[in-house]
Amino acid sequence: MNTTGSEGLRSALIVGTGLMGTSVALALRAVGVEVQLRDRDPAAADLASALGAGAVRTSDSPSVDLAVIAVPPASVATTVAGLQREGAAAVYTDLASTKAIAQREIEVIGDPTSYVGGHPLAGRERSGPGAARIDLFAGRPWVLTPSAASSGHALDTVRRMVELCEATVVVMDPDTHDRAVALVSHAPQVLASLVAARLLGADAEAVGLSGQGLRDVTRIAASDPALWTEILAANAGAVAEVLSAVAADLDRVVDALRSAAAAPDPAAMDPVTAALRAGNAGRAALPGKHGGAPARFTAVPVLVPDKPGELARLLTDVGTDGINLEDMRIEHSPGQPVGLVELAVRPALAEELVAALRARGWAVHW
Amino acid sequence: MNTTGSEGLRSALIVGTGLMGTSVALALRAVGVEVQLRDRDPAAADLASALGAGAVRTSDSPSVDLAVIAVPPASVATTVAGLQREGAAAVYTDLASTKAIAQREIEVIGDPTSYVGGHPLAGRERSGPGAARIDLFAGRPWVLTPSAASSGHALDTVRRMVELCEATVVVMDPDTHDRAVALVSHAPQVLASLVAARLLGADAEAVGLSGQGLRDVTRIAASDPALWTEILAANAGAVAEVLSAVAADLDRVVDALRSAAAAPDPAAMDPVTAALRAGNAGRAALPGKHGGAPARFTAVPVLVPDKPGELARLLTDVGTDGINLEDMRIEHSPGQPVGLVELAVRPALAEELVAALRARGWAVHW
Repeated sequence: MNTTGSEGLRSALIVGTGLMGTSVALALRAVGVEVQLRDRDPAAADLASALGAGAVRTSDSPSVDLAVIAVPPASVATTVAGLQREGAAAVYTDLASTKAIAQREIEVIGDPTSYVGGHPLAGRERSGPGAARIDLFAGRPWVLTPSAASSGHALDTVRRMVELCEATVVVMDPDTHDRAVALVSHAPQVLASLVAARLLGADAEAVGLSGQGLRDVTRIAASDPALWTEILAANAGAVAEVLSAVAADLDRVVDALRSAAAAPDPAAMDPVTAALRAGNAGRAALPGKHGGAPARFTAVPVLVPDKPGELARLLTDVGTDGINLEDMRIEHSPGQPVGLVELAVRPALAEELVAALRARGWAVHW
Repeated sequence: MNTTGSEGLRSALIVGTGLMGTSVALALRAVGVEVQLRDRDPAAADLASALGAGAVRTSDSPSVDLAVIAVPPASVATTVAGLQREGAAAVYTDLASTKAIAQREIEVIGDPTSYVGGHPLAGRERSGPGAARIDLFAGRPWVLTPSAASSGHALDTVRRMVELCEATVVVMDPDTHDRAVALVSHAPQVLASLVAARLLGADAEAVGLSGQGLRDVTRIAASDPALWTEILAANAGAVAEVLSAVAADLDRVVDALRSAAAAPDPAAMDPVTAALRAGNAGRAALPGKHGGAPARFTAVPVLVPDKPGELARLLTDVGTDGINLEDMRIEHSPGQPVGLVELAVRPALAEELVAALRARGWAVHW
């Protein structure tokens, strides 16, 4: 947590105390920013306040340095323009997941000088102020979309808020942002829904065969249709572009599968293999963990009898040799006579660990 | 674990000691079945044997009650027919994820009387004998596809194997099975790959905005393209049918988004909302929990200083108290002064573990 103060940002108004707005409020409160809270639903504002997110805004509340608009995308521009007319704040930002339409609307009905659009790439399965987390944004990208009209002071103030939330500022223009989220968020949402929709009316016995793969692919299909209709409407052109590229790929795969079904010719499957390979490469392009163990460490597999004390003996041997473990996986289940334990160490230490364990009689599969 | 014996199934041959074959072998060994192991890769058979899965098959090995063919789908029929000519076993089954083609081939080149196709709906991210789990199949569906030619003895024997693996038998005909897995597994695999493929060539800044939703949708896109080409080729017709239904839905959504982008008319989005709602309903049709992993074990979080010897001291304390750990996660990043370590134990042991660790001065977050 940054505790060096909040120069340029001493007071803030959060409009919309759901998950996102309340999480911003908690992060700002923690560094001493005065926070006012407002929500159409007074109970939501009260709960956010009870959770330590700030004080509910009253008609006497003073004007603030920054207003954070945490309302659905279609209401952003009117909310910003309304608050600007009230003089509620010196600077305005929002948290909505599409940026271009609100930007254009504010240029028409509001004052674009004091506005810098924002979109923190963070969230949770749960919603509402009770789900808020002070560290919801920590380490996540937070896109800011200043326009040519935005003042330097507005950008500095909003940037300061992002830093206080421990997120990473990414500056983009609104259209580039909207194309990016169409690719990484909005189009995947539609496709997850279409995969899940195929299960409707299917035999219960067939659906009963589903496993973790289908559950993962369709997890986000459980999202709120009303909210997502609004998001997709606000980014319809960019999402249609990504989805029609997927549709063209899909047509090629369907044609290839039909050829393969009609006559067994290994070459008929080539477009399918190409699509699977492209999927591998695209998946590998994702930042962060890719499912497996991080490649920063080397995994050393050791066979360990499955009885009390053996694991401790192994770890004692590792500790006695002064080697610091970074992670450990126990690769077996109760009842297996011999377990495979993976000891993860920094790559430079792997050879030393293998030699030390073998010297002590451990069976290392290396 | 069923330990009432293995009547009708005293000996088995596992052909292919990867994740699936070795897991079957471990489950059968645990109830006293004699298990022979065979793999094209001698090192894989040796590792499976070292893990307690059975003895590597030699030219002297006797004929067995049941041969379990755990090889890629396209090799199932020739492997079964070859073993039948050797007289290696009385009954044959396989674990491949498509059933109709192998069934038809065995009817031509082998003896369908002693064969009952099988498909356990279970798996892991990792592969190879080292990833095998004795309880990989516990509580999971295991489809058996007996044909009109299959003997009652063959079905009884294979059914017994499934019971010893603690899975649930689901009897289907091969074509119904293949249509079901096209819906719940093969088509979702293709669509996950197509979503991931769109990331290729995209701006790194755009891909950097991706979050957990995209990671979930594309997780299975990391699967092996060669293996999946084989699976999809063996089920091409049924997969094409599901995918072309998705393509039709996708075209409707793209048209709606293009209309919405061209002129803001709330009704234009109706087909999109309908697709999102259908996705909600389809997702809700999935069996079991819709997110978290099954809670077989209880995780006890303990704070551990990140320095050599501390983890060993913790594990020594656990071992001294005679508590058998089922799994362990190190929940911190290098450089953090204190790490959160999660010790997983059988739920009945959790309270005892917490008390024992606290008595020894560990900070347990319980």
